[in-house]
Amino acid sequence: MGDALIDVTGIGNAIVDVLAKATDDGLANLGLHKGTMALVDRERADALYAGMGQGVEMSGGSVANSMAGIASLGGRAAYIGKVAADQLGEVFSHDIRAVGVRFETAKVPGGDTSTARCLIMVTPDAQRTMNTFLGACLQLGPDDIDERLIADSKVVYLEGYLWDPPAAKEAFLKAARIARRAGRKVALSLSDPFCVERHRSELRELVHDHVDILFANEHEACALYEAERVEQAVEQLRGRCELAVVTLSERGSLVLAGDQTYTAPATRVERVVDTTGAGDLYAAGFLHGYCTGRPPELCARLGSLCAAEIISHFGARPEMSLRQLASQLLDS
Amino acid sequence: MGDALIDVTGIGNAIVDVLAKATDDGLANLGLHKGTMALVDRERADALYAGMGQGVEMSGGSVANSMAGIASLGGRAAYIGKVAADQLGEVFSHDIRAVGVRFETAKVPGGDTSTARCLIMVTPDAQRTMNTFLGACLQLGPDDIDERLIADSKVVYLEGYLWDPPAAKEAFLKAARIARRAGRKVALSLSDPFCVERHRSELRELVHDHVDILFANEHEACALYEAERVEQAVEQLRGRCELAVVTLSERGSLVLAGDQTYTAPATRVERVVDTTGAGDLYAAGFLHGYCTGRPPELCARLGSLCAAEIISHFGARPEMSLRQLASQLLDS
Repeated sequence: MGDALIDVTGIGNAIVDVLAKATDDGLANLGLHKGTMALVDRERADALYAGMGQGVEMSGGSVANSMAGIASLGGRAAYIGKVAADQLGEVFSHDIRAVGVRFETAKVPGGDTSTARCLIMVTPDAQRTMNTFLGACLQLGPDDIDERLIADSKVVYLEGYLWDPPAAKEAFLKAARIARRAGRKVALSLSDPFCVERHRSELRELVHDHVDILFANEHEACALYEAERVEQAVEQLRGRCELAVVTLSERGSLVLAGDQTYTAPATRVERVVDTTGAGDLYAAGFLHGYCTGRPPELCARLGSLCAAEIISHFGARPEMSLRQLASQLLDS
Repeated sequence: MGDALIDVTGIGNAIVDVLAKATDDGLANLGLHKGTMALVDRERADALYAGMGQGVEMSGGSVANSMAGIASLGGRAAYIGKVAADQLGEVFSHDIRAVGVRFETAKVPGGDTSTARCLIMVTPDAQRTMNTFLGACLQLGPDDIDERLIADSKVVYLEGYLWDPPAAKEAFLKAARIARRAGRKVALSLSDPFCVERHRSELRELVHDHVDILFANEHEACALYEAERVEQAVEQLRGRCELAVVTLSERGSLVLAGDQTYTAPATRVERVVDTTGAGDLYAAGFLHGYCTGRPPELCARLGSLCAAEIISHFGARPEMSLRQLASQLLDS
């Protein structure tokens, strides 16, 4: 993939998570649909927060979680995303830099808006239900794309969630163009089935025309092609990208590469505590394998391993060195 | 203790904790003394934060943690403490109310200062090293003391840390006077050995003249009387307060009540993860026992049980219902 200074530059919504435990009845009382991500305005966010239990604040954001994972694996990661010049923006910036991810996007001046937050309610079955107030993320635009950084990265990785804030999409398309021109790879996560429904035709066009590596779980893959069964979606995906990765929760994952299909089992976890970040960390492991020249099957196994670490505790950022965790696989 | 609407009203520094894992070498590099609490100014706080790993934000504050514990035990708790009108102030206010603690102290206007934060580094031996930037806490004063609330509470509970911000001491003395006049009890935690050293003569006078229930760990008790061995400090303490409680980490605790000495073992914990909040939750259990008319030995056992819950996970607020955890003891 040529000489590159960075393995993966991620672009995404820069978000601080507010995690709290909840019950199924609690979700129902707040009118929430378990297991999904909904966008909310400030007013609704405040009302939901008032109805939530005591929380814990942690840096989040889908692609930002992935970049933290790649850094933890020993890869070179950078991140582009928009926070405000407020306390939560300081938290986000500190945390991502503290794990070794390059992060230099200009902040939105304080007072204009606030750093995005995602209210995450975790039920006893370890499912997470998310409500996101986008705040400063709405101001991510093409000017935030550092051309040099993108051209210097083996892979630029983006989240489907970027189709929600209007200007971010342009930023993304600019980044994809730069990457392609520089002979780099473009990776995309479909993020969430409802997000896919909101932007289906645009995302489908994107996948077919611009994406080299696609990540989708079964629900997102089905949403993209309005398929009822994942097998149908898989057949639609085949041949569309260099690699199309479909994750199947506890049934593992499969990778479509041309005519080939590779599969990997899920890594067993003693106790699933919180599924927040499972897909993000799967992508981290996979992309790290890809950037270090591993075959698709090993990339998928690395993804499973990283996902297993993240679902065995509360929160979406690794609690231990993934490099150490993955040393057996990486040294093989 | 007469008719009271509230069991315990706590007064303390209202703080949001920023917890991160650290190594002994990391502490040494930052010039930190393991296991203690140091006060830092904004500049030093920023420098320390920059040197810390990725963190988790959680509401904290010694007496606030205790009040959260009492609410979790099913007791009626209120809290007086000063936050700023900023994002971390919102987090603190939300969390303490979400667990059922009454909290109505006026906020300091945003921009003037910021909500206090405590940078907590947790080493692999589960010890915590704390650096506190007091921010808005410096503005707690006598006007924040709700006379009616104090007179309506069985116990007013205060932390020695309040001797650090200059005006808080006056607020505390006002509260103690109101409580005494209303026939209520005054409880105090000595907080930290260095805090005791900073304010020894004032705290000693306070203990001897105004305090009904004292909480100290062995280091704090020794610091109060410049004793070398805890036995010497215990003899100095005897008869000074209605109840003097000395906690001895894994060796349990002892309660001095007149001529009597009651002891309670520590509750065994499978794995000690983070000792942050151990003393705060011990006090919660003890005070809840006291307010519900339990004998000193049972109060101490309740304290040990609540401390055990808090040290078995990261952070200083209970993760499970303490009422449920303590049901066997409480129903006995």
